[in-house]
Amino acid sequence: ETLSNGQFQTVYNVFSFALASMLFTALFLLVSQGRVLPRYRQALVVSATVCGIAAYHYFRIINSFNEGFAPTAIGGDYTLTPFGFNEAYRYVDWLLTVPLLLLETIAVLALPRATRASLLTKLIPASVLMIALGYPGEVAIDTLPKMLWGAASTIPFLYILYVLFVELTKSLGRQPAEVAASVKRLRILLIATWGVYPISYLFPVFGLDGADAFVLRQVGYSVADVLAKCLYGLVIYKIARMKSAADD
Amino acid sequence: ETLSNGQFQTVYNVFSFALASMLFTALFLLVSQGRVLPRYRQALVVSATVCGIAAYHYFRIINSFNEGFAPTAIGGDYTLTPFGFNEAYRYVDWLLTVPLLLLETIAVLALPRATRASLLTKLIPASVLMIALGYPGEVAIDTLPKMLWGAASTIPFLYILYVLFVELTKSLGRQPAEVAASVKRLRILLIATWGVYPISYLFPVFGLDGADAFVLRQVGYSVADVLAKCLYGLVIYKIARMKSAADD
Ligand SMILES: CC1=C(/C=C/C(C)=C/C=C/C(C)=C/C=O)C(C)(C)CCC1
Ligand SMILES: CC1=C(/C=C/C(C)=C/C=C/C(C)=C/C=O)C(C)(C)CCC1
Repeated sequence: ETLSNGQFQTVYNVFSFALASMLFTALFLLVSQGRVLPRYRQALVVSATVCGIAAYHYFRIINSFNEGFAPTAIGGDYTLTPFGFNEAYRYVDWLLTVPLLLLETIAVLALPRATRASLLTKLIPASVLMIALGYPGEVAIDTLPKMLWGAASTIPFLYILYVLFVELTKSLGRQPAEVAASVKRLRILLIATWGVYPISYLFPVFGLDGADAFVLRQVGYSVADVLAKCLYGLVIYKIARMKSAADD
Repeated sequence: ETLSNGQFQTVYNVFSFALASMLFTALFLLVSQGRVLPRYRQALVVSATVCGIAAYHYFRIINSFNEGFAPTAIGGDYTLTPFGFNEAYRYVDWLLTVPLLLLETIAVLALPRATRASLLTKLIPASVLMIALGYPGEVAIDTLPKMLWGAASTIPFLYILYVLFVELTKSLGRQPAEVAASVKRLRILLIATWGVYPISYLFPVFGLDGADAFVLRQVGYSVADVLAKCLYGLVIYKIARMKSAADD
């Protein structure tokens, strides 16, 4: 696999952008603890943890990318080295961060204890299953196994969206009006950003050239990560601030 | 591209100066939280985040500069290596920090909620547009595309200055006298430092030799960054202190 100089730089800068966003969103959420009521701090700590874990993984992804491709000449192409580029970091990251994202979503709603527990016992195993089934498809070269694993992974994915959509909608009635509007935005943001992952997964199947598909997939996953973790965490912070003001 | 030994050292030391300024301004602003009223802490946290993000990018810029140029002999010239020097980091940095700088400026004024929201929905998209349009010009080799992208980027730039100038002026009436003087200084500082960026951008066009233009541009951007982020953040801190005293 060969990347042009411009393709390498683009992917590199997008990774670096993602790392910086994750790191500083994590720090921001940590130092902002004191600005929300104690009952909403859990959601902020979990959001910060998600962004921190992702920053760590982007650090590793950048290192792997740097070792995995080497320039052939000044301004020239980048070719794959024997070290290769470790795609799987993303799945390790998701295995940790996707359950935590679901946890922070439930935490900020401050639902009754029993509702919360029942939701989490549905959502968390489904999310682990979704990531675990997607991984063999991501590393598969051929289209058939890619499609089969992808289809299998889509079942828990749709189940998660179903549970979240129904439950977020139910909880809107219990929230102050301003908060309800934010929860609606949260729901749209979740569906919009999570939807990018299966699309990026499919880029290699769309008959794109290898290098183009690679660049698009990396950019797609990275941008989706920034939206699903950083922007999502900041919206959660905003909801926590508003609910703190409303509860006061 | 070849830099003389002295040129390489100059750029290197300026980068390091910028990194140190960013990192310690960020830490200073974080530990000083307790010295202002809660309503001004948001501005300080955002300022600290801006400086922190910039410190991260200067760290990467220094690494890239170190890998991108190699000395040919003891005391000899530095020539470009196949890794190249990644100029685009600055734009990744600005994409994150310029919207945040605008946010901290609005935050410290403690304007009514509606005014704040309306200002930010004008300023933030304009700033993203300004950076996004400047980037293709920065990496362009020829003068014509450089001028066209630069001109396109100048439109949102002037729009931002217009909005800020009018709004900062309007807010002066609502502020205590001592604070009004500081807000005026803030405005002058903003126009003076932001103006350095388009000038540095134009250095390669002024018919300067490649290496001289490179050095001037890097020094110009770095000094402007220190003034626009660190000094600016410290002035914001001073305004927050004074407004805290006045509100008490
Ligand atoms: C449906 C589907 C997928 C879904 C992945 C998702 C939805 C990942 C979400 C990750 C998040 C939210 C990470 C950020 O923290 C895979 C595994 C690509 C495989 C193809 C089918
Ligand atoms: C008008 C103009 C530009 C303006 C850049 C500015 C105004 C950047 C400000 C950056 C700041 C304030 C960073 C510090 O945090 C470009 C993109 C060079 C391209 C040429 C035209």
